[in-house]
Amino acid sequence: MATIRDIAEKLGISIGTVSKGLNGGMDISETLRHRILETAVELGYENGRTKKAEHRTLAVFIENMDYEAEDSFGYGIVLGFRKAARRQGWGVTVIPVTPQFQQEHRYESVMLQNQCTGAFLIGFSLSDPWIEQLRSSPVPTVLLDNSVPINPMIGYVGTDSDEGFDMAVSHLAALRHEKIAFLDGSAGSMISDRRMAAYLHSMAGHGLRIDPQLAVYGYFVADAARHHVPGFLSRGATAILCGNDLIAKGVIDCCHALGYSVPEDVSVIGFDDLPIAEKLDPPLTTIRQNRVELGKSACYTLQAMTDHVPVSMSLLRPVFIERASCAIAKPRLAEPCENDPDSVLYRNPDLYQRYSH
Amino acid sequence: MATIRDIAEKLGISIGTVSKGLNGGMDISETLRHRILETAVELGYENGRTKKAEHRTLAVFIENMDYEAEDSFGYGIVLGFRKAARRQGWGVTVIPVTPQFQQEHRYESVMLQNQCTGAFLIGFSLSDPWIEQLRSSPVPTVLLDNSVPINPMIGYVGTDSDEGFDMAVSHLAALRHEKIAFLDGSAGSMISDRRMAAYLHSMAGHGLRIDPQLAVYGYFVADAARHHVPGFLSRGATAILCGNDLIAKGVIDCCHALGYSVPEDVSVIGFDDLPIAEKLDPPLTTIRQNRVELGKSACYTLQAMTDHVPVSMSLLRPVFIERASCAIAKPRLAEPCENDPDSVLYRNPDLYQRYSH
Repeated sequence: MATIRDIAEKLGISIGTVSKGLNGGMDISETLRHRILETAVELGYENGRTKKAEHRTLAVFIENMDYEAEDSFGYGIVLGFRKAARRQGWGVTVIPVTPQFQQEHRYESVMLQNQCTGAFLIGFSLSDPWIEQLRSSPVPTVLLDNSVPINPMIGYVGTDSDEGFDMAVSHLAALRHEKIAFLDGSAGSMISDRRMAAYLHSMAGHGLRIDPQLAVYGYFVADAARHHVPGFLSRGATAILCGNDLIAKGVIDCCHALGYSVPEDVSVIGFDDLPIAEKLDPPLTTIRQNRVELGKSACYTLQAMTDHVPVSMSLLRPVFIERASCAIAKPRLAEPCENDPDSVLYRNPDLYQRYSH
Repeated sequence: MATIRDIAEKLGISIGTVSKGLNGGMDISETLRHRILETAVELGYENGRTKKAEHRTLAVFIENMDYEAEDSFGYGIVLGFRKAARRQGWGVTVIPVTPQFQQEHRYESVMLQNQCTGAFLIGFSLSDPWIEQLRSSPVPTVLLDNSVPINPMIGYVGTDSDEGFDMAVSHLAALRHEKIAFLDGSAGSMISDRRMAAYLHSMAGHGLRIDPQLAVYGYFVADAARHHVPGFLSRGATAILCGNDLIAKGVIDCCHALGYSVPEDVSVIGFDDLPIAEKLDPPLTTIRQNRVELGKSACYTLQAMTDHVPVSMSLLRPVFIERASCAIAKPRLAEPCENDPDSVLYRNPDLYQRYSH
């Protein structure tokens, strides 16, 4: 393992300067600090202090997600992470990052600079610069709703989509719905694919026919609904499952705009149970991801990983929250309608074929 | 929450006697202790002492599995569990149980009697009496390689079968194998079904044709091989994946008995990396489940669950261990052969159809 002396020799500077660069000393330039950190990572230097359990600090990196407002998705997750860390006597540093920041700073340099032992990454997408670096990183790291193959230092935490969708489909099947549509989040996101698979699996398990024009990828925003809901309704869907609560809000608005009542004409179920869910009209039946517990779970997973347990994934139980957006099915006849280019049939044909028999 | 006084009143006995019954006092009959424990469970009594983190004792219940010999499957698992528990300052009580013991003693009574906060169950099958009781138990419990739906107090730990089988199939595909058979463990076991799905998924992902007569359920013992290996070889299989290392031992013996060399004629890959794997002739290429880390993982999962984190499943990374039981494929012509009644086509048709397109 490299020492501070190795870094100093490699850069031709004093040990004291290296120490300032590694430990956040003020009187060196940012350019030099950057070079010191990059060299430390290249040589495999590890800060002994961060290895001791009693001094441990964990990082939470957040991209593209609000976490300061109490009704934001990130708030509970960060709170839960802090709670579990406090039980172990560990510190937590929360650092919002952008793709540009990731391009300019290597993941391991930032970890070294902040003297953190492990990290939890929230809101990242698989195309982010740091994700590529995680494929070979030795830093214990947990991702929310994303996974990196093979590397035993990188784990994934999330909520069990299979159990969640099975609760939702069971509820609708008991209300005699048969034409149940699913408006998922973005194609190409790992979590969208897991939820699509969970929907198809549960429909098949309940003996319900899968219509690929009712199984569609959108985006994780309310606006996605207006492109797909008219088609669902034309095809006679009596219920619409949604990839998250924001999509469900868009679906309800769109149904209303088209003259359909929720739940009398169309039942709607969300996913997440964000604070907005109970404030919608009608209040939204949804699958709760307990965000505080997700945050705790990330911290316990990191604890196991720092004890050399190579966790691949740790999934939490979802909770079915019944409110007022579902009712007994009111079947309607289907009308002719153009095919939806975002159907699972076109966007993920392998997944579709697996359940289409 | 019920108190000792409630139990005493319900049974018409003294508080002192109830206390003896709950705390292992010697001078009361086993019949009375049994009644006291059962009543305590019925009334929802909780031992306050076991709730305090500093006094915590965890139970490991083992059924049908050796754990005392160093080369046994259970040894490393129990060792890892003890190691992680010691880091938290918790005690561990290891209790071997039989189905008959489970019939005679309720799960929660045994937990109460042993003053344990949570438990890890190894080697149980879904037909065991305690599994039914777990559906509604409030005791934090982790199962190895089995799961119980819905109840947030019951988690499942294991090794990521998808990643494991993908490593094995990738290795064989790189050696130009196309007819890759899979001899799984028992039909109806959750872990067998997960491994079968992982095999089918990986074959499909590698663009390899799935022959349902090469995807077969057996038993988790070496003897299973002789019923299925002759058929695999007649059908021209050049490689055989196995549900565990014991099955792989049987497969190798059977190939030899039929005049085939391993790996020159047939490549064989196991699962688990038991100590016997490296002693086989040839030494077995296999997918390692790190048993010490599995045991640790169960303990960390229990820790999270006692902090109200409802872990549904926590899976570890497998490790591909390359030894000498695989070689470049040597294709053979298939001969006519009877269908195997244990094929996935007959034993699990839904799973087969999902991957058969």
